[in-house]
Amino acid sequence: MGKRIKRITKRKENYAQWYLDVIEAADLAEHSPVKGCMIIKPYGYAIWENIQMILDTAIKARGVKNVYFPLFIPQSFLKREKEHVKGFAPEFITVTHAGGKKLEEPLIIRPTSETIIYETFSKWIKSYRDLPLLINQWANIARWELRPRLFLRTVEFLWQEGHTVHSTEEEAEVKAREMLEVYRSFAEDYLALPVISGRKTESEKFPGAVRTYCVEGMMQDGKALQVGTSHMLGQNFAKVFKVKFLDEKGTEQYGWQTSWGVSTRLIGAIIMAHGDDKGLVLPPRLAPIQVVVIPLWTSKEEREIVLAKADFIAQNLRNLYKISVEVDKREHIRVGPKFFEWEKKGVPIRIEIGPKDVAKESVVVVRRDTSEKELVTEKRINFRIRKMLEQIQESLLSKALAFQKENSYIVDSWDEFKTLIEKGVFIYAHWCGSANCESKVKEETKATIRSIPLNQKKEEGKCIFCGKSSNGRVIFARAY
Amino acid sequence: MGKRIKRITKRKENYAQWYLDVIEAADLAEHSPVKGCMIIKPYGYAIWENIQMILDTAIKARGVKNVYFPLFIPQSFLKREKEHVKGFAPEFITVTHAGGKKLEEPLIIRPTSETIIYETFSKWIKSYRDLPLLINQWANIARWELRPRLFLRTVEFLWQEGHTVHSTEEEAEVKAREMLEVYRSFAEDYLALPVISGRKTESEKFPGAVRTYCVEGMMQDGKALQVGTSHMLGQNFAKVFKVKFLDEKGTEQYGWQTSWGVSTRLIGAIIMAHGDDKGLVLPPRLAPIQVVVIPLWTSKEEREIVLAKADFIAQNLRNLYKISVEVDKREHIRVGPKFFEWEKKGVPIRIEIGPKDVAKESVVVVRRDTSEKELVTEKRINFRIRKMLEQIQESLLSKALAFQKENSYIVDSWDEFKTLIEKGVFIYAHWCGSANCESKVKEETKATIRSIPLNQKKEEGKCIFCGKSSNGRVIFARAY
Repeated sequence: MGKRIKRITKRKENYAQWYLDVIEAADLAEHSPVKGCMIIKPYGYAIWENIQMILDTAIKARGVKNVYFPLFIPQSFLKREKEHVKGFAPEFITVTHAGGKKLEEPLIIRPTSETIIYETFSKWIKSYRDLPLLINQWANIARWELRPRLFLRTVEFLWQEGHTVHSTEEEAEVKAREMLEVYRSFAEDYLALPVISGRKTESEKFPGAVRTYCVEGMMQDGKALQVGTSHMLGQNFAKVFKVKFLDEKGTEQYGWQTSWGVSTRLIGAIIMAHGDDKGLVLPPRLAPIQVVVIPLWTSKEEREIVLAKADFIAQNLRNLYKISVEVDKREHIRVGPKFFEWEKKGVPIRIEIGPKDVAKESVVVVRRDTSEKELVTEKRINFRIRKMLEQIQESLLSKALAFQKENSYIVDSWDEFKTLIEKGVFIYAHWCGSANCESKVKEETKATIRSIPLNQKKEEGKCIFCGKSSNGRVIFARAY
Repeated sequence: MGKRIKRITKRKENYAQWYLDVIEAADLAEHSPVKGCMIIKPYGYAIWENIQMILDTAIKARGVKNVYFPLFIPQSFLKREKEHVKGFAPEFITVTHAGGKKLEEPLIIRPTSETIIYETFSKWIKSYRDLPLLINQWANIARWELRPRLFLRTVEFLWQEGHTVHSTEEEAEVKAREMLEVYRSFAEDYLALPVISGRKTESEKFPGAVRTYCVEGMMQDGKALQVGTSHMLGQNFAKVFKVKFLDEKGTEQYGWQTSWGVSTRLIGAIIMAHGDDKGLVLPPRLAPIQVVVIPLWTSKEEREIVLAKADFIAQNLRNLYKISVEVDKREHIRVGPKFFEWEKKGVPIRIEIGPKDVAKESVVVVRRDTSEKELVTEKRINFRIRKMLEQIQESLLSKALAFQKENSYIVDSWDEFKTLIEKGVFIYAHWCGSANCESKVKEETKATIRSIPLNQKKEEGKCIFCGKSSNGRVIFARAY
């Protein structure tokens, strides 16, 4: 399906082109005829379904229920919270006509759903007994985008957005941090991507939030990618949309709110964190196909024997251990191209079985991430494959963690900062807290403050830009 | 959550109002501030998730893979197939502005995705080896609607749309019929709704299709509801969008296509097929909560004993038999209102446990559909509840089937037709095949031909309207 590209650009040659080549080679997605929009192909969508299944379970386990709110938001709703409209208005996609007539009020395709959801919350909530109100939706979102990039920045994308209302500030704060922690552990345990939990600066926070928490990961070019965000909204939206409740004493109070989300961008994170010059490398826990079995034969008789064995092995792995296995029986494609194809698709383990292997009661097992080959006797296959999938998952995480550490620097001089940032690194530097310094650094180096780490140590120092006093280091990096 | 209504209108008083009352009373959904759009609330969405889970598995079991195509369709795409644009243009919802600028070409919010998907298929398919191409997507759809009705007809709704391409006409025809059969069996086995499989007339078919197959169910007011459709598209779209392939001989051929879908309308079908004057009645296989346990106590000590027993029973049902159980421990709501609330929500079985029941090692079990009470000893609870859930599922289906039979008539006289149709029934009558008679019948009686049943018997007769000769009976009914 789809045209095949001859060669994947090497990461060192052109990282941005490598990224696009991998998406094409692995058959994950493609640009649609509508500028900026994305078609997610079966293999890419299967990764998203795995992400959804795991996150949905984690979200529901915290008492959150799924709902569905409309795609269309009246323009007037979006204008009510001033910071919110300032942040999103430039990206509005506007419906002006419907059913052959001009609408009285334009409708905006949801760029995020705080306004329409909170307008409704104000009707749902009467008393403290209705709280906490915890909901989530899996939905499509649209924000106009002039420089789209598949999975990372597209006009339309898929995401999950959680919205909660609490009776106290403390409880909302705890929820915002709890969901951040869900994202952090998901990133590490499933994406195999070590991320840093932190708080956004005032200039980088979500429009309308009191505080934005985020998890940021490092891609292989040293750039940062925001993997997930969780917003403590305080009472900002509650006051605008009248999200009120009667407390136990019968006094009317405004609710305290949070919102939090991750998107199809996570697929971009997987590609850029683990992919190599041969193509995609998938963490086993999210791989739609965890093991591919390639049978080798030269005659019809051999074919029968080898296929029977391949199916036997595949069935065992599937049925006894719930491992997703594909047996590539295609006859019109030779073995070499088959190897390349599954390598490009990042399938964690390849099993090769030829007539000699059947005779010797063994198979050849190849790891996608390290290319290591191993002869495994038939009796040990189930055990070895299970173990190897775990090893690959762990190994991807530790490799990514080592990479992140190698490319993180504690910097105290502005000259060093400017030199290092060119290499693509995370820089831990002091910052005085002023938006002015922050924007000047961005202007001169294209680096932004990714976050004020949650585990930031108190440390006296001087702002990397202006030299004024600072209490701790923040993370600077160029970002997607 | 949400305002509570005092009384549900009786079906006989006002069926349409009853329908809306049940949706509100069961807390399934509500109208959004955007006219015609719907907010699907947690309980309603949980039913949709159950529907999705089952249908998604059934669809994937047939080799179909999920994908995601863009929400926005260039207006020019939709105009290419003439019948298609004629059918959908009056409902177009149009984006004219984005990012603060007027778009060169307006974008239409997808009313269905044939055009954008087939434009892409033309690039994906090269040879017969790429066929059959079988994809599906779960997505939101928008069609402008002036008389919206929750779940049945809303501006935006959720659905699944499958799209396939085959190398022969026969294979496409088989696929279209196969998917219709998936919908038929899903309706009967899960919705507990007997449906009639049939073919739409030329005037009622999907704009752009060669043939539209459908399954139609009867609601309690005798009106028909189209539950699902499957279209044999022939080569109509393939020719317009150049969906071509090289066959085994190297000759270029157009593909043969199908598309098929069901939507959140299925929830409307459940409500109208099974609901009663007390509220919703859910088929156990789709109920988010299958059993609710209501503990009764009058003192703190009793409360402890009763809750311990309630939890014990619930845990057994959940863990050993995967039954979804809720224990209603709320202290600020009395038992009576609890009973009403769960009745309104259509939970199939209620278990009542008081201190006396604990002492007697038994519980009271109440069926939602029949209101039958039964004393069940503790030892038999697991067995009895499992059995009862099956019985309710079967009983809903046979009741609906009996209702459908009672309200279906074989009619040969136009006078009888006009009298009967007022009662809300399905009429099996002869039809000459002319669009003129079809539209005249509609004009005079508001009844449409729901379908030409697939199991239509060859039978000589005379058209109910014009008296010309006919070979078999079709189904006339008023419909949603």
